[in-house]
Amino acid sequence: MTEFGFIDHIAALCGDLPLNSFEGIGDDCAAIEIGGGESLLFTADLVCEDVHFLRSASSAFDVGYKSLAVNLSDVAAMGARPVATLLSVSLPKDATEEWAEEFMRGYHALSKRYGVALVGGDTTRSASRITINVTAIGRMATSKIKRRSAAREGDVIFAGDVLGASGGGLNDILRGHPDTRLADLHRRPEPQIEEGLWLAEREEVHAMMDISDGLASDIRHIMEQSHVGAELDLGRIPVAEGVDLKTAATGGEDYKLLFTADPDRAKELMRDFENHFHRPIHPVGRITRGDKLRWMRNGEAVELDWHGFTHY
Amino acid sequence: MTEFGFIDHIAALCGDLPLNSFEGIGDDCAAIEIGGGESLLFTADLVCEDVHFLRSASSAFDVGYKSLAVNLSDVAAMGARPVATLLSVSLPKDATEEWAEEFMRGYHALSKRYGVALVGGDTTRSASRITINVTAIGRMATSKIKRRSAAREGDVIFAGDVLGASGGGLNDILRGHPDTRLADLHRRPEPQIEEGLWLAEREEVHAMMDISDGLASDIRHIMEQSHVGAELDLGRIPVAEGVDLKTAATGGEDYKLLFTADPDRAKELMRDFENHFHRPIHPVGRITRGDKLRWMRNGEAVELDWHGFTHY
Repeated sequence: MTEFGFIDHIAALCGDLPLNSFEGIGDDCAAIEIGGGESLLFTADLVCEDVHFLRSASSAFDVGYKSLAVNLSDVAAMGARPVATLLSVSLPKDATEEWAEEFMRGYHALSKRYGVALVGGDTTRSASRITINVTAIGRMATSKIKRRSAAREGDVIFAGDVLGASGGGLNDILRGHPDTRLADLHRRPEPQIEEGLWLAEREEVHAMMDISDGLASDIRHIMEQSHVGAELDLGRIPVAEGVDLKTAATGGEDYKLLFTADPDRAKELMRDFENHFHRPIHPVGRITRGDKLRWMRNGEAVELDWHGFTHY
Repeated sequence: MTEFGFIDHIAALCGDLPLNSFEGIGDDCAAIEIGGGESLLFTADLVCEDVHFLRSASSAFDVGYKSLAVNLSDVAAMGARPVATLLSVSLPKDATEEWAEEFMRGYHALSKRYGVALVGGDTTRSASRITINVTAIGRMATSKIKRRSAAREGDVIFAGDVLGASGGGLNDILRGHPDTRLADLHRRPEPQIEEGLWLAEREEVHAMMDISDGLASDIRHIMEQSHVGAELDLGRIPVAEGVDLKTAATGGEDYKLLFTADPDRAKELMRDFENHFHRPIHPVGRITRGDKLRWMRNGEAVELDWHGFTHY
């Protein structure tokens, strides 16, 4: 069964369960309102050895760091501040004490940097291979939550940073070159936490999510949830140094923000972002009527069959 | 490294992280206050193939059911109502579509029974073996939370039900008899959700937790958190039908409640519980001064070296 087939099965089977005041199937996080106009947000991600990382190609520190980073990115993708995590780790006999301690140092370093509490979890043996699950909890003003469903026809589509570095790094690792700058970025991605918090304050930002499966794949989530189409301009996709356009458009695990904004305020948003972060955001296309994704070059539609990426 | 060695390492390393209004390291769940005098509670548990279950000895339905049951038990152990879960599952190629669907039917059946929402999670491939992580969220009045740290000298120690059925069932499975009544109870334990909610309303109930590693092991958590000792009376330990006393005292995965109560109100508590649930609770000993666990028989201390259990 494919991952998406299983998700569809779960959704169909569990459609009769109560919601208990939670919302958010379809977004990066589930959310529940608490007092004082605030909400708590929840997300969980599994990291599996030999699927998401190779012990031979990533240090234990990097695995710890990245296990948390991918979850903090989901929290940032809705504009929330990450406040706590629960960490579950299963370790086989061939994972040494040193590996486990170095893993925790990576996890701790990123927790510390963003002031995230570690409030629970589980540790256990595994019969083979390391598996990690991180559940991250975010907190934010309910009125400022950014959802995938909020894109409007005419919106400018933005990428929060250059794309493809992680995909290029994965290619390097698979080709036997694990020591490149791009491979480092694949092993230790930088989620846009502060950027997500900043963008949450901007009313002209409508839909938001993070790019984990590649722009070509993830834009479809915004389209589906917002019931819109999209045009992506091949000439405007911000390509990370050292990778090609297709990798930038389809490579996964960049963990950069993807968002849409009111076209009348897009220039102001770009200017204010650059003034604040000293880096630009990148307009890559626009939201259209309908339900189609079109790739554009010099104003002309181009036939392309680009999709998301797969892991190891 | 042992599981507990790793936990100690994590606790030491992460001691400098902020708490962000969460509390609860040392309890079955972490908790955060929300508005209206309520708190949300969080717990996570990993379930690993060939450690926590054998695909040859448990149906997929049972694995789904039990993965949720152990987490609901942690929520119940503090007196909370389980309101939502996040479910992460990694499936190897040799786990069929039928296995995944049957797993979800077990998970769904128990979710439905207790009205628990499924609000998120992750599905992914694994290179080998099935791993499951469930994060459960509970909700309750903050003033009624039952903690491991609340036991007082003189308290009566209670088991919420007979003990040892799951341990006996595990023994049956390991001996090649997977079709016994006890093996069924091992594969499909009944967490005491309603009992936990009822006990949370009783002020005379002080400390509470669930028995997951065996009475002999878990009572030590209450002792440590409450800075007290305990006497357990071998003649009063409620032994499940078909198992021996040692299995009842040390067998894991019963997921029954363990709690302490004011001795002056213990009889009333026992009577009211039995009137409500038509089953008794079982006084098994008392909380003492100091930090020692003593096993008693006919009022005399007995030397025993009984500890908790290990998985497959």
